[in-house]
Amino acid sequence: MKKLIRGLNEFRQNYVRGHQELLEQLSHGQKPRVLFIACSDSRVAPNLITNTDIGELFIIRNAGNIIPPYGAANGGEGGTLEYAIDALGIEQVIVCGHSHCGAMKGLLKLNKLQKDMPLVYDWLKHAEATRRLVQENYPDLTDEEFIETLVAENVLIQIDNLKTYPVVKAKLHQGKLKIYAWIYKIETGEVLAYDAKTHTYVAPQSQLPIDNSSDDIYSLAPSVANQTPA
Amino acid sequence: MKKLIRGLNEFRQNYVRGHQELLEQLSHGQKPRVLFIACSDSRVAPNLITNTDIGELFIIRNAGNIIPPYGAANGGEGGTLEYAIDALGIEQVIVCGHSHCGAMKGLLKLNKLQKDMPLVYDWLKHAEATRRLVQENYPDLTDEEFIETLVAENVLIQIDNLKTYPVVKAKLHQGKLKIYAWIYKIETGEVLAYDAKTHTYVAPQSQLPIDNSSDDIYSLAPSVANQTPA
Amino acid sequence: MKKLIRGLNEFRQNYVRGHQELLEQLSHGQKPRVLFIACSDSRVAPNLITNTDIGELFIIRNAGNIIPPYGAANGGEGGTLEYAIDALGIEQVIVCGHSHCGAMKGLLKLNKLQKDMPLVYDWLKHAEATRRLVQENYPDLTDEEFIETLVAENVLIQIDNLKTYPVVKAKLHQGKLKIYAWIYKIETGEVLAYDAKTHTYVAPQSQLPIDNSSDDIYSLAPSVANQTPA
Amino acid sequence: MKKLIRGLNEFRQNYVRGHQELLEQLSHGQKPRVLFIACSDSRVAPNLITNTDIGELFIIRNAGNIIPPYGAANGGEGGTLEYAIDALGIEQVIVCGHSHCGAMKGLLKLNKLQKDMPLVYDWLKHAEATRRLVQENYPDLTDEEFIETLVAENVLIQIDNLKTYPVVKAKLHQGKLKIYAWIYKIETGEVLAYDAKTHTYVAPQSQLPIDNSSDDIYSLAPSVANQTPA
Amino acid sequence: MKKLIRGLNEFRQNYVRGHQELLEQLSHGQKPRVLFIACSDSRVAPNLITNTDIGELFIIRNAGNIIPPYGAANGGEGGTLEYAIDALGIEQVIVCGHSHCGAMKGLLKLNKLQKDMPLVYDWLKHAEATRRLVQENYPDLTDEEFIETLVAENVLIQIDNLKTYPVVKAKLHQGKLKIYAWIYKIETGEVLAYDAKTHTYVAPQSQLPIDNSSDDIYSLAPSVANQTPA
Amino acid sequence: MKKLIRGLNEFRQNYVRGHQELLEQLSHGQKPRVLFIACSDSRVAPNLITNTDIGELFIIRNAGNIIPPYGAANGGEGGTLEYAIDALGIEQVIVCGHSHCGAMKGLLKLNKLQKDMPLVYDWLKHAEATRRLVQENYPDLTDEEFIETLVAENVLIQIDNLKTYPVVKAKLHQGKLKIYAWIYKIETGEVLAYDAKTHTYVAPQSQLPIDNSSDDIYSLAPSVANQTPA
Ligand SMILES: [Zn+2]
Ligand SMILES: [Zn+2]
Ligand SMILES: [Zn+2]
Ligand SMILES: [Zn+2]
Ligand SMILES: [Zn+2]
Ligand SMILES: [Zn+2]
Repeated sequence: MKKLIRGLNEFRQNYVRGHQELLEQLSHGQKPRVLFIACSDSRVAPNLITNTDIGELFIIRNAGNIIPPYGAANGGEGGTLEYAIDALGIEQVIVCGHSHCGAMKGLLKLNKLQKDMPLVYDWLKHAEATRRLVQENYPDLTDEEFIETLVAENVLIQIDNLKTYPVVKAKLHQGKLKIYAWIYKIETGEVLAYDAKTHTYVAPQSQLPIDNSSDDIYSLAPSVANQTPA
Repeated sequence: MKKLIRGLNEFRQNYVRGHQELLEQLSHGQKPRVLFIACSDSRVAPNLITNTDIGELFIIRNAGNIIPPYGAANGGEGGTLEYAIDALGIEQVIVCGHSHCGAMKGLLKLNKLQKDMPLVYDWLKHAEATRRLVQENYPDLTDEEFIETLVAENVLIQIDNLKTYPVVKAKLHQGKLKIYAWIYKIETGEVLAYDAKTHTYVAPQSQLPIDNSSDDIYSLAPSVANQTPA
Repeated sequence: MKKLIRGLNEFRQNYVRGHQELLEQLSHGQKPRVLFIACSDSRVAPNLITNTDIGELFIIRNAGNIIPPYGAANGGEGGTLEYAIDALGIEQVIVCGHSHCGAMKGLLKLNKLQKDMPLVYDWLKHAEATRRLVQENYPDLTDEEFIETLVAENVLIQIDNLKTYPVVKAKLHQGKLKIYAWIYKIETGEVLAYDAKTHTYVAPQSQLPIDNSSDDIYSLAPSVANQTPA
Repeated sequence: MKKLIRGLNEFRQNYVRGHQELLEQLSHGQKPRVLFIACSDSRVAPNLITNTDIGELFIIRNAGNIIPPYGAANGGEGGTLEYAIDALGIEQVIVCGHSHCGAMKGLLKLNKLQKDMPLVYDWLKHAEATRRLVQENYPDLTDEEFIETLVAENVLIQIDNLKTYPVVKAKLHQGKLKIYAWIYKIETGEVLAYDAKTHTYVAPQSQLPIDNSSDDIYSLAPSVANQTPA
Repeated sequence: MKKLIRGLNEFRQNYVRGHQELLEQLSHGQKPRVLFIACSDSRVAPNLITNTDIGELFIIRNAGNIIPPYGAANGGEGGTLEYAIDALGIEQVIVCGHSHCGAMKGLLKLNKLQKDMPLVYDWLKHAEATRRLVQENYPDLTDEEFIETLVAENVLIQIDNLKTYPVVKAKLHQGKLKIYAWIYKIETGEVLAYDAKTHTYVAPQSQLPIDNSSDDIYSLAPSVANQTPA
Repeated sequence: MKKLIRGLNEFRQNYVRGHQELLEQLSHGQKPRVLFIACSDSRVAPNLITNTDIGELFIIRNAGNIIPPYGAANGGEGGTLEYAIDALGIEQVIVCGHSHCGAMKGLLKLNKLQKDMPLVYDWLKHAEATRRLVQENYPDLTDEEFIETLVAENVLIQIDNLKTYPVVKAKLHQGKLKIYAWIYKIETGEVLAYDAKTHTYVAPQSQLPIDNSSDDIYSLAPSVANQTPA
């Protein structure tokens, strides 16, 4: 805790001094461009890995970067994303999984969890589709590959859940919302983005359009969102 | 989105290169010391304001840094904090509110929210105690003071909610868990910590013990755990 | 009621006499090929409009042919579809809306419903995405067109909900499940099927493949199902 | 699926041509006389067995013809029956079980279901009273008799559940609603109706009154409904 | 509070001294004969009005002597009555309403309650059948008569709710459980018992059988219970 | 039942005759000073042990004197306590556990309960914090001591739950509500009250202030409200 307090001081002496204008301006309101949904894992640092500043990312974090389907839970996920899109007008959502995710590992030992950590067990029910899909469709994986596959499929499944929300559905239909599937690799600091055309995760850079003059028309792997019938 | 991809590259070129050992080591498991519960607000950046590195903070973020009481919600909050304490052995929890919080402002216009953002409305029921406490006990505040008071009382109320969880109750009783109430001031980058003795939020530094040789016995405003604000 | 009893007799004298073998055989177990999800509306008659016999369609019927997302309701929908797919091995699902649907009309007068028929109001929350999507995306419709559009979009939205179920997700991924979107026109007895390529509802016959030698490889508008990432 | 499309055509060429007036008339609104609650089982065909036409039966179908008590579920059952009685003015309800019901068989292997089909398991909790009543009161049955008894008692128990709904309670008290308990025998196409006086299921024909001039005063086994205190 | 402490002393000096044997015996286990369900109202005193001693009545008390149907609530009512019947073997249940009940009065001002006392409002949903039944069936009552009728019908409706519980259903079927409907008149100290034959509340004494040699075969107005199909 | 009817007569002949004025006055409204929350156990008799009269105690009773946290249950507890404090203006709450409590014993055999009494099992989840706290913090207790400790800690934990309710939180903050923790010893008729200063249960009399002129300023162990047991 001492270390944290020291850190608070360092932050004020270093960062705050150099960003007084930004802080003052932000005190009048936030205007983030992106809703970033990530795991609570301490090794995932949204602002750091995207090199974004204070004020740029609106962030939801829970174990497993899970978004229960609309109506399936009364925790913070639904209200927070509704606020992000309806109140803040955010038009880009990133669901970001990560390698070595403890929540995904939990899907492999649900019996133990039911007894030892009943709330974790209950929470992981919202990733039951992930577990079952991988279990039934990937029979010959090593343990490590199994976890990797859970991580990758889970991001897509949570995006499908996301798309059951009225606000998301309505905005997608209008073309006013794009949803991106990312995986962060802890060991290399690399991010992969889902490419719907090839059904694989690829380097996001490889998807950069030639004419990238406008950020608004840029579209990185937004095809996940496009799967919604128009 | 282009900007984010550029950021990913910058992160790899700058940070990753200089922290390869750390990343490699973290890929074998996380060992965070603190569970940090904060608002999804883009202006709140836990790692930045505490100057902590990847791997140090396990983070829950939702609109309003709210923790519904045990059994009151089936969202990510309960399972994630159970995981933090039971699986990761975390012994320090910080609930961090912030100035100008949109969720707290929402408590003042619930009628409008019920119609326009029903999920936000439902979510804020878990802060109804905050709303009612401030409404009934602080009659003569300006609007700005009112929001500030909501923010301050809400952190304490969410800590009381936190204390209804079996894992939290059991660890507090053993003295193996400390809970801290913080408020982050967006405009100044300052953090205040709740001091139970004086029922006020104070500069955390002022509470540093003279003999601070050990982080474990150091205790910053841990008295929140021992009591309800009066 | 007299009429119904007379009908029971007519059924036994006419149908039963001519289908004793079928009935006897079915008494040893059902083997339906299709899960048919339709509105409770008395004007929708699944077996009649598909000219199918006893034993061919496993049927869920409720007001509005609604399937709440996985985890969002504890009524009969979830268990019944899980039974259909997991226990009976059904591999084809039809979600069938219909013109002049009273439930869809209900979406236009929710305020009145909340007071007069609170359970209908609660139930229609599972079609809130339908309401909002149409309201925000189709500004210039006549009342009649508005209902028609609600009916058409609702079928697609309920299919998206369907796809949040673990059993559905897993089977879709294996290519062992196809989901069809139908609309039944009460006034003409006509059925339209959703064609994902053109984002329109078309005559199902027009989609018949040239080589239709096998029912198993035949694919009518299954592209809704294909939207799931593989 | 080819077969279904062929059926759609046959329906239009045969049925629709001969019923154009009826269809046209029904397109202006439905006026069903009966709410028919039946199992999703493909072998149960409400319109066929009662020889009723399009427009006569408003139909709820789920696994086990179960109606959870008022407030116990947020699926389609409650809203749909409220709509039937309050919006359509239906005054007759038939709850129709059937022999060889898979849902009733499920009550005998709940342990297996809890693991293999968790949603079916959850759904059957609403028939737990059926299971326990039969288990404790009929000790010496063969397996087949046991299933038969579950089917028979379940219909009565679901009727008791039905009677917990405000709309049902109010209409029963006014004598404006009658509830009938039926069992359909798959092997013979026969229907039995519950006779409250003798506590047995009997042929519905045997209950026909001598003077049956009016359908309104005709009363087939409505005594189940009369059990409600007036 | 001083008064209460004085009362504790008086209890020990007066009652305890004279009942040491009873208390000692009860410390080895309770053996109550009756489950008494009453309103929390301070004017209702189950032990006093039945002149029963410590150990005789197992008591549930909440606002309005309400028992939500099986599955409709996760409060104390369900678990407590299951414990009473299954663990303690209680075979007699009394649901006791009372005149001037504040909860019943609340049914007349639900709009106000929804805003001012949301939890009371939510709780009274379990008495919505009472409200609707009386509103629709008793058009010409004075306010006072209206309340009286709500009280009387509510007891019967809560008994119907009670009968949806598996344990209740099973025991009723075995004839091992009797349920009684009582109303306590605050102004006169009188109790009325529901008589199913006449559909009225009568003096319980008037129902005493001539041969009352055995308490076990004595049956006061148990016909409410008999309404369950056997 | 005969005995109870005899008791009703005795009550009218003895008590009612001597308290006609009180009853008449109470028929115009109740004005209880205390909300008394106790177990349903037949051996606990709130009015008797406090020697209070009709009209003095507003009483909630369920198995285990449990108050689920705000939002965690929709049974009678929340609405009833809201009514007590908001509608009746009650300013004193007593949560009263008792020795040999069957509900607390249930916490030691949850596995068995889950199978045999599922509703009791579900209900005891609201005392899971009690179970875990005692299990992890009191390793060397005999069975009897274990039960005693569960009873004692459970009262304090339920008081913490109570403090999550908006109405309770707001009134505590105003100093308009006091909460007391009591344990009733069945074998001796003795009551112990929790003393926050010493973290022990003590004879309530020992806490009487010297100057006890006013009941309003009298304060028996009200410090429970101010803190969590350590
Ligand atoms: Zn993770
Ligand atoms: Zn905020
Ligand atoms: Zn319809
Ligand atoms: Zn069936
Ligand atoms: Zn009352
Ligand atoms: Zn007890």
